[in-house]
Amino acid sequence: MPTSDRPLPERSLDPQDWEAFRALSHRAVDDMVDWLRQRDDEPAWREVPDEVAEALSEPLAPGGETEEAIYADFLETVLPYSLGNTHPRFFGWVHGSGTPIGALSGFLAATMNANLGGRAQAPVLVERQVLDWARELFGFPSGSGGILLSGTSMATVVGLAVARHRATGGRDRVEGVQDMPRLVGYTSSEAHNSIAKAFELLGLGSDALREIPVDAEGGLDPEQLERAVREDRAAGHHPFAVVATVGSVNTGGFDDLETLRRVADRHDLWLHVDGAFGAAAQLSPRFAPILRGIDEVDSLAFDFHKWLQVPYDAGCVLIRDGELHRATFESRRDYLTSQESGAASGEPWFCDFGPELSRGFRALKVWFTLRHYGTERLGQMVERSCDQATRLGARVEAEAELELMAPVTLNVVCFRYRAPTASPEELDRLNREILIELHEQGLAVPSPTRVGGRFALRVCICNHRTGPEDIDALAEATLAIGQEVSGLVAV
Amino acid sequence: MPTSDRPLPERSLDPQDWEAFRALSHRAVDDMVDWLRQRDDEPAWREVPDEVAEALSEPLAPGGETEEAIYADFLETVLPYSLGNTHPRFFGWVHGSGTPIGALSGFLAATMNANLGGRAQAPVLVERQVLDWARELFGFPSGSGGILLSGTSMATVVGLAVARHRATGGRDRVEGVQDMPRLVGYTSSEAHNSIAKAFELLGLGSDALREIPVDAEGGLDPEQLERAVREDRAAGHHPFAVVATVGSVNTGGFDDLETLRRVADRHDLWLHVDGAFGAAAQLSPRFAPILRGIDEVDSLAFDFHKWLQVPYDAGCVLIRDGELHRATFESRRDYLTSQESGAASGEPWFCDFGPELSRGFRALKVWFTLRHYGTERLGQMVERSCDQATRLGARVEAEAELELMAPVTLNVVCFRYRAPTASPEELDRLNREILIELHEQGLAVPSPTRVGGRFALRVCICNHRTGPEDIDALAEATLAIGQEVSGLVAV
Repeated sequence: MPTSDRPLPERSLDPQDWEAFRALSHRAVDDMVDWLRQRDDEPAWREVPDEVAEALSEPLAPGGETEEAIYADFLETVLPYSLGNTHPRFFGWVHGSGTPIGALSGFLAATMNANLGGRAQAPVLVERQVLDWARELFGFPSGSGGILLSGTSMATVVGLAVARHRATGGRDRVEGVQDMPRLVGYTSSEAHNSIAKAFELLGLGSDALREIPVDAEGGLDPEQLERAVREDRAAGHHPFAVVATVGSVNTGGFDDLETLRRVADRHDLWLHVDGAFGAAAQLSPRFAPILRGIDEVDSLAFDFHKWLQVPYDAGCVLIRDGELHRATFESRRDYLTSQESGAASGEPWFCDFGPELSRGFRALKVWFTLRHYGTERLGQMVERSCDQATRLGARVEAEAELELMAPVTLNVVCFRYRAPTASPEELDRLNREILIELHEQGLAVPSPTRVGGRFALRVCICNHRTGPEDIDALAEATLAIGQEVSGLVAV
Repeated sequence: MPTSDRPLPERSLDPQDWEAFRALSHRAVDDMVDWLRQRDDEPAWREVPDEVAEALSEPLAPGGETEEAIYADFLETVLPYSLGNTHPRFFGWVHGSGTPIGALSGFLAATMNANLGGRAQAPVLVERQVLDWARELFGFPSGSGGILLSGTSMATVVGLAVARHRATGGRDRVEGVQDMPRLVGYTSSEAHNSIAKAFELLGLGSDALREIPVDAEGGLDPEQLERAVREDRAAGHHPFAVVATVGSVNTGGFDDLETLRRVADRHDLWLHVDGAFGAAAQLSPRFAPILRGIDEVDSLAFDFHKWLQVPYDAGCVLIRDGELHRATFESRRDYLTSQESGAASGEPWFCDFGPELSRGFRALKVWFTLRHYGTERLGQMVERSCDQATRLGARVEAEAELELMAPVTLNVVCFRYRAPTASPEELDRLNREILIELHEQGLAVPSPTRVGGRFALRVCICNHRTGPEDIDALAEATLAIGQEVSGLVAV
C-alpha cells in the first residue's frame, strides 16, 4: 500500500493516526452489518429515555472529542432510538426501509464528497445515467429534463415552477407573478399537502389550488375538473396546471392519467404527477397498468427513498420539455462560467435545473440500488408489499372485531378495532390507545390517520422486509390489545 | 454475535450472504481510507476518458448485478474522476474538502436510514442539538427557529419565505402575492446569484431584487440602500427585505451587518444574511469581528459543507423569530397528526419548518464533525486557510509576471499571469489557457471568473488540506505555464 509522504498531517483535519481511524471504521462496519441483520430481534420502536434526551441536548465541547468517544455515544444514544423504518413491522406513514448496499454507497458518496452542481466529473455522469434509467422506466423521451432532489415535495416545487414559467411565457423569473392574472391549479381532494405547500412557496397561495372531489373510483373527477376550469376562466383567472396523484397517501388511490391528459390538453394545462410512492408500481407488470398514461405527462415527481428502498433522501423530477426545464432555472454569473475543457467544462450543469447550486452525491446510492436489484427484483418486491396488504385486508375482513376503513388499494390498509357497543368517539379513543400500545410495546408501527372523519390505524407497506408473519403478528397484536384496552374504555 | 433466526432472507432485499456483504464493506473501508490518505499522490483533477463516459451511459440491466461487480465499476469509473475537492491543491469555486470522520458518519446515517420529517426518534434530537450549537455559535436566542437544508440556496429560500410571510401579514400562504403591493428587496451588486434565484422561486421575480452598488470597502452601500428604499416606497412598492453578504463569492467581500441592521430597522425590513462560507469566520477569534452584528439579524443562511468540511450536502438556516418560522411552513393533514406518546409524538416536527416532508439524516455528519474537531480546531483551520490566501497574495505581488485582480480578503485570491505587451483580450485568452493547463496537468484547480470585466484565476481556500507548499506549487506552475503558453500566444 503506497502511503503519502506528505508531512505534518496534524495541520489538516485528517486523522493523526490513520490506522486508528481505519480500525474504528472496520468496527463500524461490523456493528452496522450486525444491526441490519438483527432488526427482527429488536422492538419495532422504542421511546427515547429521558437521560438519552438529556445527553442529546448537551452543549458543544469547544476542544473536540475523539472519534471513538463520539462513536460510542452514537451506539448508545442514537442508533437504538430510530423510528423503526428498517424493521420488518414498520408500516407507518410512507417510509422506505433502506438496504445494506444503500448504506455502503452512502459511505462511498460521503468519502468522495462530490458537489453535483456541475463541472467535469464522473459523479455528474452517474446522476445523468440514473436519470436516463428513470426516463426509460417511465417512457419519457431522451431529451426530457430531470434532476434528483431531496424528495417529492421539492420535486413538485420544481415541476410546478416549470409549469409557472410556461404559463407566464417566461416572464415570471424577471417580473414575478404579482402583476399577472391569477394562476390557478387543480388537484384532487385526496392529494398530499406537499402540493398546497408548493403553491404557497411559489407565491401562488393555497387558495389558487382548487381541490376537486374524487369520483366513485377515488380518482380526481374529470367532469368536476372541467367545470372548475371553465368557472375560473370565466372569472378572469388563468388555469395553468393540474396535479394528479398516483398513490394517495391516505388510502392509496390513483387518478386516471389518460383522462386527465385529455382534459389538460383541452384547456392548455400542465399535467404534473405526484407519484411519491405509487410511481414504483411501474416496475411491476401486475400493477403498471394503473399508471397508464404516465409516459405522456408533463412532469413526474417521485421518490427513490420510499418504495424503491434507496436510503434517505432521494427524490426525482422528470420534465418532458427539457429546454423549458433549463430555461426555468438557468443562471450563471462570472464565477460560474464554464470552459471548453478542464474541470470547469462538462455542460450542462445540474445547477441550471433546480434551485440548488451545491448538491450532494445522492445519485450514487440510487445507482447502486438500481444496478444491484434491477427492475425485476424491485418489481417483485413491490408486488410482495401489495400481497402483504391484501393479506392484512383479508384478515381484517375475516375478524369480527376488526374492520376496514377504506378499500385496500395496492399497499395501503386503513382499519380499526371495533367494539359493537362503543360510540364513534369511544372507538376513536380505543384505536388511538391501541396504536400507542403497539408502538410502546415495540410490536409494530402503523401510523394514525382519519378516514371519513374517524380515527384509523394506517398500514402502508413500503417495506421489503415485511413478510406474512409480520402481517399476522400485527393483526393478532391489534386484537389482543383491543380486547385488553376495550375492557378499560367505558363502552 | 446473535443472528436473527428469521427465515427466508431471499424474499427481502437483504443480502443472501451477509458475510460476503460484510467482507465487501471491509474492503471498501480499506479502499476509502487508502484513497483519502493518498490524495496528494494523485492529480488534483483528471478528465473522464471517453470509454468511462460510455460505460456511465449504459442502460440498466433489468436482472440486477452483484454488489462486487458494481463496486468494481465504482472503483474504475467513478472514484478516479472526482472533481478533486478532496485534494490539497483544489481551490475552485467554494468547495469543502470533507473529512474521514464525515465519510464514516455518512455510512452510519445511510444505515439508520432515518427520515427527519418529524416523529419520536433520536435522529430528530441530534438535529435539534446541532441547531442549538449553531444558535450558540452565532448568538441566536434559544427560542429561535432553524433547520438543516441542502445548502445556502435552499436556506435563503426558506429565510426569504419567512420574510415574505411577515411582510404580507401571513396572507401569502393562502392568497399568494398576486393581489398585493409589489414586494421588493435589496442586496449588493456582489451578492450571489442564489439570492435572485430565491426571489424567482418565491414568485417575486428578479426585478424585485434591487442590486445596490458597493461602497469603497466593498460592502453594500447603506446610503444608496436608503435612497432605493425611499424611491420604492414612493413608487407604491413594499420594501420588505435586505439580503446581506458575508463572504462574497467572487472576492470575499463583507457587508457591514451593524449598519444594515440600523437601516433595516428604520425601514421595517427583514435582514437576511448569506453567509454560505463566510459565516465560518465566526469560529476564528481573529476574523469573527468582521461578522459583528450577526447575532442581531433576522435570518442567517450558511453551509456546513463548505468551510466547515462536513460532506455534501449540509446547509442551515437560523430564524430569529421561531414562531414566525413555524407559521410560514406548518401544515398537517389527517395522515400527519401527532399523538401524545408513541412513535407519532415528538413535536415539534421539522416538516413544519421548511418545504420538505421527507428529510435525510444530514444532521449526523454535522454532529460528528462539530463534536470531533470542536470549534477551536475548526477556527484554527479557518485561520490557516486565510494564511494560505495571504501567502498566495504576497507571492503574486512579489512576482512581476503575476498580478492581483482584487485585494485579498479572507480566503479568496483573484489573480492572473501578465505579459506586458499583451492586449486585454490576449491576457484573457492566455489566462484561460493557463487555467485549463493547470487542470489538465492535474497540478491544481483554481476556477475561472471575471473581475472588472477581465478573466481571472480565482483561488478560494475552503480546504483544510492546503498547506504552504500547495500555494507555492500553484504559483510556480502558473509562472511556468504562463511563460510556456505566452510564447504561443500572439503578443
